Amino acid sequence: MVYLDDLDREILKLLREDARLTISEMSERLNKPESTIHFRIKKLIERGVIERYTIVLGKSARPNEIAFVVLELEKPVIEDFLDKYLEYVSRNLAMLPNVLLVGKTEEERIIALVGADSKEELLKCIEENIKSIPSVKNVSVHYIKDFKKGEEIKGLLMGI
Amino acid sequence: MVYLDDLDREILKLLREDARLTISEMSERLNKPESTIHFRIKKLIERGVIERYTIVLGKSARPNEIAFVVLELEKPVIEDFLDKYLEYVSRNLAMLPNVLLVGKTEEERIIALVGADSKEELLKCIEENIKSIPSVKNVSVHYIKDFKKGEEIKGLLMGI
Repeated sequence: MVYLDDLDREILKLLREDARLTISEMSERLNKPESTIHFRIKKLIERGVIERYTIVLGKSARPNEIAFVVLELEKPVIEDFLDKYLEYVSRNLAMLPNVLLVGKTEEERIIALVGADSKEELLKCIEENIKSIPSVKNVSVHYIKDFKKGEEIKGLLMGI
Repeated sequence: MVYLDDLDREILKLLREDARLTISEMSERLNKPESTIHFRIKKLIERGVIERYTIVLGKSARPNEIAFVVLELEKPVIEDFLDKYLEYVSRNLAMLPNVLLVGKTEEERIIALVGADSKEELLKCIEENIKSIPSVKNVSVHYIKDFKKGEEIKGLLMGI
């Protein structure tokens, strides 16, 4: 990773919270000249630290409840089939709006992050869309009841 | 969730990719009058669909490799202790810069998302900071080798 000093980190933290802050507002909060802030942001963009700007979804549009799901499929007789089937299942999962993240792991499992408005809806979605997949061997559902870090993921990943 | 029509979704998609787009650029891309775009964005903010604006970290500042870790602790003789210990361990994990997300699950497990520049560094970080926790019963490491959706999480969650 690139080297970031304290001022770089402070600037990133402010922009992370509110990317619409003006240079003069940031200058005031960090007690540094506007020219310094301007130069640092320019450098952060040039160095590939800041890639782009995006939106965070608000409470009315993001899932309240989140679960990590680990999906294991039966090993078929024809070994070559498993790879293709994992690819097919993970691509289908990725198309669901309730599924925020899908990845294939080294151990031939599929990881998904599923979000919904309520716990009931979340479990129903997992039941209907994941547990019902043919050849499912095991589905571990890790419903997160309490976030200590990274809860903003709810407003950052979009199913649509 | 709130009701979003096709135009709302199109606007959200554009802003998600680049929140710095001007009203006139969006108007051109979506082939709608500027006044419509302006009104819709205003409404999306008022309705709590768009909460705020943030930055996406670039390749030079985000982890290349990601793993989901599920941590299970031994059940102690004094039952009351487990809750406190889970709280203590998850808070400590949340302080590590390589740990992007930490949550406690209903089944008394801790879920963490760990990121690093290389797979070696990732496994080392999990070895040193998670597997070494006293009373660990089981640590499942799900190293994601291939994302189908949500890979942008790498640039959205910050350990700092």
